[in-house]
Amino acid sequence: MTQIEAARVGKITEEMQAVAVDEAVTPEFVRDGVASGHIAICANPARRSRRPLGIGAGLATKVNANIGTSRDALDPELEVSKARVAVEAGAHTVMDLSTGGALADIRRQILEAVDVPLGTVPVYEACALAVTREKSFAELTADELFEVIAGHAEEGVDFVTVHCGVNRDALNRLTEEGRELDVVSRGGALTIEWMQYNDADNPLFVQFDRLLEIARAHDLTLSLGDGFRPGCLADATDRSQITELVTLGELAGRALRAGVQVIVEGPGHVPLHQVQDNIRMQKALCHGAPFYVLGPLVTDVATGWDHIAGAIGGALAGWAGADFLCYVTPSEHLRLPDVKDVREGVIASLIAAHASDIAKGLPRAIERDLKMARARKALDWDAQIACALDPVKSRRLRDSSPPTEDGEVCTMCGKFCAIRAMERATKNEQA
Amino acid sequence: MTQIEAARVGKITEEMQAVAVDEAVTPEFVRDGVASGHIAICANPARRSRRPLGIGAGLATKVNANIGTSRDALDPELEVSKARVAVEAGAHTVMDLSTGGALADIRRQILEAVDVPLGTVPVYEACALAVTREKSFAELTADELFEVIAGHAEEGVDFVTVHCGVNRDALNRLTEEGRELDVVSRGGALTIEWMQYNDADNPLFVQFDRLLEIARAHDLTLSLGDGFRPGCLADATDRSQITELVTLGELAGRALRAGVQVIVEGPGHVPLHQVQDNIRMQKALCHGAPFYVLGPLVTDVATGWDHIAGAIGGALAGWAGADFLCYVTPSEHLRLPDVKDVREGVIASLIAAHASDIAKGLPRAIERDLKMARARKALDWDAQIACALDPVKSRRLRDSSPPTEDGEVCTMCGKFCAIRAMERATKNEQA
Repeated sequence: MTQIEAARVGKITEEMQAVAVDEAVTPEFVRDGVASGHIAICANPARRSRRPLGIGAGLATKVNANIGTSRDALDPELEVSKARVAVEAGAHTVMDLSTGGALADIRRQILEAVDVPLGTVPVYEACALAVTREKSFAELTADELFEVIAGHAEEGVDFVTVHCGVNRDALNRLTEEGRELDVVSRGGALTIEWMQYNDADNPLFVQFDRLLEIARAHDLTLSLGDGFRPGCLADATDRSQITELVTLGELAGRALRAGVQVIVEGPGHVPLHQVQDNIRMQKALCHGAPFYVLGPLVTDVATGWDHIAGAIGGALAGWAGADFLCYVTPSEHLRLPDVKDVREGVIASLIAAHASDIAKGLPRAIERDLKMARARKALDWDAQIACALDPVKSRRLRDSSPPTEDGEVCTMCGKFCAIRAMERATKNEQA
Repeated sequence: MTQIEAARVGKITEEMQAVAVDEAVTPEFVRDGVASGHIAICANPARRSRRPLGIGAGLATKVNANIGTSRDALDPELEVSKARVAVEAGAHTVMDLSTGGALADIRRQILEAVDVPLGTVPVYEACALAVTREKSFAELTADELFEVIAGHAEEGVDFVTVHCGVNRDALNRLTEEGRELDVVSRGGALTIEWMQYNDADNPLFVQFDRLLEIARAHDLTLSLGDGFRPGCLADATDRSQITELVTLGELAGRALRAGVQVIVEGPGHVPLHQVQDNIRMQKALCHGAPFYVLGPLVTDVATGWDHIAGAIGGALAGWAGADFLCYVTPSEHLRLPDVKDVREGVIASLIAAHASDIAKGLPRAIERDLKMARARKALDWDAQIACALDPVKSRRLRDSSPPTEDGEVCTMCGKFCAIRAMERATKNEQA
């Protein structure tokens, strides 16, 4: 039985219990969310060491960190340490997007190194496979692609991105309307290449039921990728993007009916004033399925600092109902991120997720900030650092600049500390 | 004649001309904005080297960087270099908030080092003056305070923060309603201390006309400070904050009638879902006066990364109509920022300002992103780096990780580059 099948017969699984404890909600709330498809629990039973994670309505907004080799930057150990750093910094999931080296081996190492849900994009492995067979991805058969996906499910991968909505219909819309930056999703572009070469529609769309069988057998959560996500602000919310989203909504419905857990992926590059409309549209079209956004980036020109452009978009998206934020690192658009980038990307997304959880009214998020406010009033630095989303950096900055005249204030204000002035004013008032 | 007096008699000053060129709008648009008080031009005629800056409706969102010594971190040269770094990174104004050392000397050095508008908070100098006279700030006379402000105007300071709205009325509201973190504005807290000690209302409120005379004589722009800005999310949008804002709206009207340019300052710590309401309320209460926000910070727990919490709030604020963003650095709440912090704070705020300018529909902001999109499609790295808000870091990251197989892609995707795949797919389609 998958989580969704258990939920539908009223059963509260161990995984639902664990999620309820993590989120401070009732197990029944989690069960009902899973049954309706508003919550997904990423937890492949085939995985040995795993921490079930709930993603969806009424739960805290989650953060994913992408790691993985490329053919130009191939150091599996480094990627494993990035996975560890991401989880230590607070990432709720990791996606292994490796495209260079012995992919199965790298994946196994990451599955062992961290216990958070692991996601993959099997089309990358299919593509690498084609390269080793001296073929292009377009020359692979549909069978070969499905075999790769089934392999990931058997190994214990918890969720996979599958670009099922990249089809003729959406592609025709793109060609007709035109775009500044065409398709920037790697999986999307490869799928289109396959479609053109084989003069056929996308096998993941045409044979979606075959994918559902694999997913159901392993309780593998499907993350329906957005191959037509805009790669620049000028392309945002256009006809191909929305056509694909309509398809994803339909496929999400089919997955739920088949007892398969599903998440829907979204943009991408989106101007500030369109972010919330995009989220609300997805929630309506996909009947409340969890929404997983990449960024969104609210400008195209923040290279070197795209984690900040992504945090702005992510906070807005989360507030509007997005459930799962894929981080963006400072190296986005420039290079494969290093370990420092990974940590910065995670923290930026955590800030966005937390800010949106406050706006969503989640009591635990609000309490954390209140605790910080009280620690500040008490000038209690240990308590302040304990409340911080990043206690490590907070401690380092505080310790780097110790105040001299009054050890309890900080070197920004020193004697001019507003909290101290108010203490004096209050005393004077009482005197 | 002040800018506002000139505008009212239909005159287009040199400064209005310069602003119009900078902003790609007509001089008439600038003149009418100044006349109505919707645009302020910070440009003290007493200053030798100056670049006039327009702040307000219909213009690009501006970014301010706070620098300045404290008694615990007293290195005037370092502060001058922070001012230079801030301007090089793109800050539109600098505020010297020094509280330690020979303040007049430091101010003079900064006035000479940069040509952007310089702002100050004269109450800090008054306070430092009291300390040298072995008095507390509360023991200073109103005359002494006004003398300090007049001194700044004579020296060429372009705008000053004056906490004129900190009065009995707002303070009573605060006492009555209660707050988690009382008053976190240094100027606000000092003013309250003065009021309690002297059992009198704030001289800057009571003798506001005296302040207007000084400002008018030097075309000094008044930035009406928000002493009651919330210091934590729990205190946001409460009765003392809004009472002060009502007063600031009234004072802004009096300033305009007296021919004095005025900006209104705003929060602070504000939850995501209240940011835009705060901006719209200010714009209504202050009849469209330019709004200058500090952050706002959308969470209290982002210490070490408050520039990101501030960028989220700043982007939202700008979109809703805020005209001027005061940066926040990674060291906020922990220590006086270092040079690196200053640069990071400026860039984070510039991203927020730019994202909001796109949402505001400013054509030049939109064009910049379009240019980047086209450079990306062409895999033209020099053009991409030229479009970036931070070309320096963008170049450094790109150069640190050169691709090996295909020099035109990047090490994130290498052979898997989506742009390359689409090129192949398009060729195949044509074949």
